[in-house]
Amino acid sequence: MSSLEQKALEYHKAGSPGKVAIAVTKSVANQDDLALAYSPGVAAPCMEIARDPALAYEYTAKGNLVAVITNGSAVLGLGNIGALAGKPVMEGKSILFKKFAGIDSFDIELDETDPDKLVDIIAAMHPTFGGINLEDIKAPECFYIERKLRERLSIPVFHDDQHGTAIVVGAGMLNAVEMTGRDIANVKIVCSGAGAAAIACLELLVDIGARRENIFVCDSKGVLSKARNLSGEKADWAQDTSATTLSDVMEGADVFLGVSGPGVLSQADVQRMTKQPIVFTLANPEPELRPELVREVAPDAIIATGRSDYPNQINNALCFPYLFRAALDTGATTINQEMKRACVTALAGLARSDARFGKDYVVPGLLDDRLLPTVTPKIAQAAMRSGVARKELDMTAYFERLEALGKHLL
Amino acid sequence: MSSLEQKALEYHKAGSPGKVAIAVTKSVANQDDLALAYSPGVAAPCMEIARDPALAYEYTAKGNLVAVITNGSAVLGLGNIGALAGKPVMEGKSILFKKFAGIDSFDIELDETDPDKLVDIIAAMHPTFGGINLEDIKAPECFYIERKLRERLSIPVFHDDQHGTAIVVGAGMLNAVEMTGRDIANVKIVCSGAGAAAIACLELLVDIGARRENIFVCDSKGVLSKARNLSGEKADWAQDTSATTLSDVMEGADVFLGVSGPGVLSQADVQRMTKQPIVFTLANPEPELRPELVREVAPDAIIATGRSDYPNQINNALCFPYLFRAALDTGATTINQEMKRACVTALAGLARSDARFGKDYVVPGLLDDRLLPTVTPKIAQAAMRSGVARKELDMTAYFERLEALGKHLL
Repeated sequence: MSSLEQKALEYHKAGSPGKVAIAVTKSVANQDDLALAYSPGVAAPCMEIARDPALAYEYTAKGNLVAVITNGSAVLGLGNIGALAGKPVMEGKSILFKKFAGIDSFDIELDETDPDKLVDIIAAMHPTFGGINLEDIKAPECFYIERKLRERLSIPVFHDDQHGTAIVVGAGMLNAVEMTGRDIANVKIVCSGAGAAAIACLELLVDIGARRENIFVCDSKGVLSKARNLSGEKADWAQDTSATTLSDVMEGADVFLGVSGPGVLSQADVQRMTKQPIVFTLANPEPELRPELVREVAPDAIIATGRSDYPNQINNALCFPYLFRAALDTGATTINQEMKRACVTALAGLARSDARFGKDYVVPGLLDDRLLPTVTPKIAQAAMRSGVARKELDMTAYFERLEALGKHLL
Repeated sequence: MSSLEQKALEYHKAGSPGKVAIAVTKSVANQDDLALAYSPGVAAPCMEIARDPALAYEYTAKGNLVAVITNGSAVLGLGNIGALAGKPVMEGKSILFKKFAGIDSFDIELDETDPDKLVDIIAAMHPTFGGINLEDIKAPECFYIERKLRERLSIPVFHDDQHGTAIVVGAGMLNAVEMTGRDIANVKIVCSGAGAAAIACLELLVDIGARRENIFVCDSKGVLSKARNLSGEKADWAQDTSATTLSDVMEGADVFLGVSGPGVLSQADVQRMTKQPIVFTLANPEPELRPELVREVAPDAIIATGRSDYPNQINNALCFPYLFRAALDTGATTINQEMKRACVTALAGLARSDARFGKDYVVPGLLDDRLLPTVTPKIAQAAMRSGVARKELDMTAYFERLEALGKHLL
């Protein structure tokens, strides 16, 4: 066992097991307090909410409460380890919500694999929460589950593994493409991996200007091509091409997007790319090809990974706390494409406005205290403009509130 | 709106809405902490738990985490107000768990009424929690739901409205019966109400020595009798009697147990009872007959209510925090009859050992700091002796731990 693993086990065990606890936010010092917090006083907020369901946001924690829900079928790079074994990750996610955006979050691990049952179970929980963050649910079920829940519920439902990764990749890519003088409409993109995150990244890249005909996707069997008789999401990305291997399609590629596993990309593949290539190797903890090896053959490459010990860390925590913060604060009924696009632009803009902007700084750092007050208002505005917000915010006051909240958090 | 109602609304709204929040129990101050709490370090506890599921109790919050789950179908005395409107009560319950026993608790409100679906939904959540407290689910569905969940899950499942009330009634009744020189085997009991709490109280009274043939139950249509062709739980309590009204069966009754509603009991009914009658009027907030009116016709009656502004408050919070504390600490797979009985005896004993013991002090007060270190160890011992505990506790050390915890809480 590595030293990091040892330390991580000790960290999780020390003091009280795990990483989350409940805090009581109101005084319960005496009988009078109890009479307000519980019987008989508690009947008053109950009756008010029964009369007007919107008042749940005034009298309960719902308005600041997000569920982090998994069935443990695709946990990190560990695969289908089950709901219980996924709990440390979900608790970790909960504390990121709190740490970066002051959002309270219950982690819920579900012992269920049937997609329809999962939809029913999660949908039934909607009165509890102000939003639902789906996490580490395997593809292709995750697409169906998210879509069904979004149809059924009028609170935001967001599968972070798909859209969180996509948004941060999108922000980094916008900057990398601009920095290298490319036009996103013309870049040739090769994606290794066809799972939930990969597909969502590609859809977002198309949304911000990339063209489908320039995108080549490989799974473990090679290039997704019409010849392979694919179905579902994979069929959507199949090209009419005779190329079969990753190396085939790497010829003349501007962008490599790795959302697969270590060892997939070779130095020879990088040498097949255009000048100053854009290489996003997101497999975690071990990237598709280590940055130092990429650099050996392409010294001016723009490289991003999922790791905190290299520059340009593509980390979902750069977006999900702010997306939910904005959604909760505007009373948004969903997290829509406009909000996601606003998040991409805001993240890219924040990096660009920094003195460090350059090939080792295409996305902001995780602990940047400008994220909350800069990115969140842009998403909130997008929610209001696109008609999914139930509240109009005064943007000056909102910015100040976020700045104050941020100081308290980081 | 009354002044209490106004105050309760303000209390729930002030500062952050609601009563609960998430607290982060580990340091997340910098990149190194994040690497332990989340990716990549978090993979280590995940893999350990995948190898040995019991380690979830060492590396996650599961072991101190109880779900408070409702569908809002029978909230307090308010009836079927729905899941969302029930949320203030569930949050209230969560803070009682924390306040009285240091237990963390997520409140989960479910938009579902079908009993089988509720069972499936709640069962699927089992990896998340160390125990499940069902709350304010209407009869008769609650009986079925609790039974099915107890069969399916190996964590404690406890419907507090049934058993919590029953246990505290049992403790008060033991003391009242003894104080008045009666033998529980011979007392004639009249129960007004045939809902979940009433039936559970009667079953517990039988368990501690009352005899079924001495128990007469009335619902809104009068005495449960064989002539009425009843089914389910009500049929179990039907007597072969020609009596039809509450007043008929109150003749010569030693005990009146009201788990129904205001106005059911008259002073004339109390006058039909034996000398020094035992009158538990638990309807809340308005009892079946106000204590001052009972006392007018039976000055020496032993009276208990559900209210905090009269002596002898029968409040579930006297037992559920300690039952779950003991269950979690012993790793009990269930809360069984032995543990409930131990709780009854311990609560009764604590009241008896107090200088105030007497007709106005048959149960301890809610804020008594002896409850945690006195009642909990008795329940823990019962769990260990009856074979449902997965851990053997050193009782001396455990008592000290509880005393320290209690000082920290109250």
